[in-house]
Order: sequence, then structure tokens, then C-alpha cells
Amino acid sequence: MLSSLLSSIGALPPGLAAEAQRHLDGLTKPPGSLGRLEEIARRLAVLRGGAPSVRRPVIFTFAADHGVVAEGVSAYPQVVTAQMVENFLRGGAAVNVLARQAGARVIVADFGVANPIARASELVACPIAPGTANMARGPAMTRAQAVSAIETGARLALAAIEAGADLLGTGEMGIGNTTAASAITAAITGAPPERVTGRGTGVDDAALARKVDIVARALSVNAPDPRDGLDVLAKVGGFEIAGLVGVILGGASRRVPVALDGFIAGAAALVAVTLAPAARDVLFASHRSVEPGHAAVLAYLGHEPYLDLDMRLGEGTGAALFIHLARAAALVWSEMATFKSAGVSERS
Amino acid sequence: MLSSLLSSIGALPPGLAAEAQRHLDGLTKPPGSLGRLEEIARRLAVLRGGAPSVRRPVIFTFAADHGVVAEGVSAYPQVVTAQMVENFLRGGAAVNVLARQAGARVIVADFGVANPIARASELVACPIAPGTANMARGPAMTRAQAVSAIETGARLALAAIEAGADLLGTGEMGIGNTTAASAITAAITGAPPERVTGRGTGVDDAALARKVDIVARALSVNAPDPRDGLDVLAKVGGFEIAGLVGVILGGASRRVPVALDGFIAGAAALVAVTLAPAARDVLFASHRSVEPGHAAVLAYLGHEPYLDLDMRLGEGTGAALFIHLARAAALVWSEMATFKSAGVSERS
Repeated sequence: MLSSLLSSIGALPPGLAAEAQRHLDGLTKPPGSLGRLEEIARRLAVLRGGAPSVRRPVIFTFAADHGVVAEGVSAYPQVVTAQMVENFLRGGAAVNVLARQAGARVIVADFGVANPIARASELVACPIAPGTANMARGPAMTRAQAVSAIETGARLALAAIEAGADLLGTGEMGIGNTTAASAITAAITGAPPERVTGRGTGVDDAALARKVDIVARALSVNAPDPRDGLDVLAKVGGFEIAGLVGVILGGASRRVPVALDGFIAGAAALVAVTLAPAARDVLFASHRSVEPGHAAVLAYLGHEPYLDLDMRLGEGTGAALFIHLARAAALVWSEMATFKSAGVSERS
Repeated sequence: MLSSLLSSIGALPPGLAAEAQRHLDGLTKPPGSLGRLEEIARRLAVLRGGAPSVRRPVIFTFAADHGVVAEGVSAYPQVVTAQMVENFLRGGAAVNVLARQAGARVIVADFGVANPIARASELVACPIAPGTANMARGPAMTRAQAVSAIETGARLALAAIEAGADLLGTGEMGIGNTTAASAITAAITGAPPERVTGRGTGVDDAALARKVDIVARALSVNAPDPRDGLDVLAKVGGFEIAGLVGVILGGASRRVPVALDGFIAGAAALVAVTLAPAARDVLFASHRSVEPGHAAVLAYLGHEPYLDLDMRLGEGTGAALFIHLARAAALVWSEMATFKSAGVSERS
């Protein structure tokens, strides 16, 4: 399934961007005066081949645990992953609040949470294993597990698209997953571990130094091949990150826009574009994370974030806020009067 | 009325910000991880003295014409002010689209449009005069006209607050009004005209050079007193800008948050804080405008914008987009679970 998915992701037809901009320039405003809102509208229109629509956004919040927490890389105990999944299912987490506001559905999936989760009908249970292995001592997962998690994520994305989703957001939860994201980012972009490793949920200086060491050790122990996204993902990734790679590839295969959240979603995007470079065209960098590695991710992807609010929560919270901008762009496209229809004079 | 309004604007009670942050730190997220969304929530909570609410936002889009257009400072003919007011009343302008999306009412008021506006029941007609005088040759308006426009704007704001408005947005339309905003900004901040004068709706290099000259000439002809906001406003301002000064002061007198749009609203804020320094506390800089003078405005106000989308349209479009962030902050405050209520473990 993965290979057919990858082969279905191709370059966008040329010429559509100029045509979209002509439409925007006919609306009652000085040309370009809505700035990056016009950029969003243009990109959405190109993907859709017509008027953009942000009526049914869906946020995928995937959770999994990370064996690397044994090295003491997080400020919170591992049980918080399961506890936060329960919080998502009850609707009390930040992503729930912001998704409700944005009219987005949140799909919460267990890709490999170590601790038991109290059953809830809304949980998509698709665990690969109860957490990855400790990447500081060997590969986080097998290549087969990586493929399986990607395919599961892609299937969830494609099912949502079948059901009408017109924008996909990526979110995640997993104590320890900034460590995995740092390792992926260092492996694929070539940036040194100390430049792409940050405080995550808020570790102190000593723990940050240890975290940098662990990322370096994971890379040296596993020697992931930067040209092979699957190899990087399997050796230093995470199950929820693999699931998000699948969401991105699923969206890309149908030209449905994918709003990346922050650093961890960005690491998933690095893997996705390594597997299918044209997937880049469906990505929208919703916000700039406080995590230092995010800058390397964004530079590699060639995307500039739309929001910069010093956020570092994950879950899909940045993607949820971006939905308002995407919808604003779509509504501007469809609802604004033209100079002609409104009888407004053009430039003198 | 103005002097009693000004005397009702005082400093905020101390200690509320720390109390608000304690509430935010109890929610299920690492402390501070929602970044500037928490800053917005904290500021809204301090203003309200309790849980923030963004249920009934109102955007004031005030229009007026500017005698200085006789000097050739705009890319568009003056008739566009009236035409755009008609577009606002029909709901076809960008601010209408974005306000509808944000659930905000738009109050469109004629503070002095030079050309006739086709009657519409939704227009608030309160013209001071059919456009200001040419500030390159003398004062734009009398001091009495400035006071009258401020009081009218304040009355509209207070009436909206009486009717339940919990967030006020400032918008404007007036061909030539970036020239007035540049002159106000240069006068109050002391920045040289060439640093605070930009392309407005899109003038070319020659017209930009002329615009800088006109701003310099307006300042030298009128010699406004930078410590006297009313003097600056009367000599180099505009009627719609004066109206927005009133909205800001009206909001400040009731501690209702005021979302500034871009450069022109920012110039109104400069005048407002010159008249009542504590008005600064209710201001939220919604976005960073492309207009170069906006940086000087923001530095003077001591506010950092929340959005940076290369916009330069005015009308209240930036304020409308900010409403989503303000509402997100309010919902996070009220709807997120706490560590305690959700049974989520705190930092280890």
C-alpha cells in the first residue's frame, strides 16, 4: 500500500497559481494587501483546482510512548501520555478546546501508548507496540513497524477525506517525543544535535545537556541513512510520528491541505518529503514552535509559518489556530465583492 | 464629555496578572506552553477581573476623506472612500467577510466622507465635514472638530458596550489616511517622516517621495505640539482617526479590550495614550502592518503584535483575525481541564 501511495503523489499542474492570483486581484482591495492570507488562498485554490473550502477540517492527534524516556529526557512521567489521551477523549485538553472553536473534528488514535487507557468509544486503537524501544541503545522500531504505522495513518487520513475532510491537521502526544523529533531532524537535515534539541515540556539545563547527548548517541548507535526516510523513522522515530507521516502522505495523494502543527509534526513532514518530495506542496506550516529544532525543519521544508505565538504544546493546537486563517482565506476568495460587482474604482 | 471620559481612565489594580497566571498554570499543559495565547488570556482576565469573554465583538469601521489627497498622495481616487463605504454596507468588503467569520458586528460610520453615499439603514451618519482641509497648507481640522469626532466615537463605543460588546475592534477607510497616520506618528514619536511614511494602497517611488515631502511640510506648516494629542490630531489627523481615538478611550474607560488594526488605528492609539496614558492597558496590537510607520507606533505603545501576515488593508481586517486568537485564549481559560480535574500527573 505504501508504495502505491507514494507513486500517487506528483507535482502540481503549473499555471494555476497565476490564475488564482488574478482572481484575488479582482477583489475590492489593493492588490496583495491581504498579504499571506492571499498566499494561503492561492495555495488552497491551486490544490483544489478552484475555490478553496475549509468546511470540514479534521485534526489527527496521535499518541504513543517512547523507550528513550528511560534515559531521563522528559520533565513528565510516561504515564502522562495515557492520562492526556484520556483528557483528549473527555474533551478537556487544549486541542479539544481549540478544535471545537475552529469547528474541527479531533481523531485521537493510540499508536502505541505504554500505559492502559480507560476505554472510550472515540479512541481509534491501533497500537503497534506498547511504546518504542530505547533508541539510545538500538533502533526504536523495525522497518515493518514503521511501514505499518505509516499505512495506518494514511488509511485514517483517506477515510476522513472520503467522509468530506477538506483540511487535515496533525497533532501528537507522547512523553519523550521531542527527543525523537530532534534525532529525526538532525539525521535528515544534517544539523548538529545541540542545535535541534530543546527543552520539550520544560527540562532544566542538566536534563537538556543529557537530552543532547542522548540524541547524539541515538544517531551514532543507529547510523540512520538520511536519504532513506523509512530508515530514519524506524531507527530514531516514534509510532505516532510514523502515523503522522501517513496522514501527510494520505493528504498529499489527494491534494488535500495538511496543516502541520509544530516541531514533532515537522519531523514527520521531513520523513514524508524524503519519501515523496511533492508532498511538500500540500503542507502549511501553521506556527513557529519555541523548540529550536523547528527552524531547521522549516528551512528544510522551505515553509514559513503563518503564526508565531511562542507556543510549544503540540497536540495539534497550532494547527487548530491555523484553521481560522485558512478559512479566512477561503471566505475572502468566495465572499468578497469584485471591483466590477461593487462598482469600486480601480487605481488612478 | 471628553474631560470626564479621560478622568475615568485609570491604572489597573495590581496583582491580578499573577493570579490569572496561576489559573493558567493549573490547566493540563506544561506551564507557559501556549505562549502568547496565555498572555492574551491573562490580559483579558485582568481587564475583566475574572474569566475572559469574547462573545460579542464589535468592529468599528469609520470612514472619512482627507484634503491632503489634493497633493497626489494616493494611488486611488477620493471617490473610492464613498464606494468602499457602500461596499461595507452591502457586506462585500474584506472586513465584512472576516467579521462574519469571527462572529463580529461591523459598525460603519461616516465621519466625513466627501462624496455622496447611497443611503443605507446600517450606516451611522455622523459627518464632521466633507473631508478634512489639506494639512499641507494648514490644520486638517479645528480643535473643536477633533473633540466632537472623539466624543462621537466614544459614544458609539459606550453604546456598544452597554449593548454587551466585550471586545472592540478598530477599522477605517479613507483615501489619503496613511499620510495623516504618518504625520501623527512622526509628530508624537519624533521619528523622521521618511521612516514612517510608506506606500499606502500602493504608490510608486515618485509618489512615495512626494508623500514624504508632504508629511514633512504638514509638520512644518502646522508645528503640532507632541505632548498635546488633541493638537496633533487637529492639525495633521483625520475625522475617522479622531473617531477611533474615541473608541479607544471609550473602551479604556470601561476596561473593555480594544483590538487595534494596523497603522492608522495605531496612529489613533498614539493620540489616545497621549491623552490618557492608562488607555495603553486595554490595547491589543492585532497584527504587524507592512506600513513602515507601524514599527514606530508599536515601539511607542510598547505593544508587540500577535499576527504578522504582511497585511496592509486596514478596514479592521487585522482586528477581525485577532478575534479568533482572543476567543481561543478565553476558551482555553474557561474550558480546559485542570491537572486536578483530569487526574493528569504534574512534573516529576
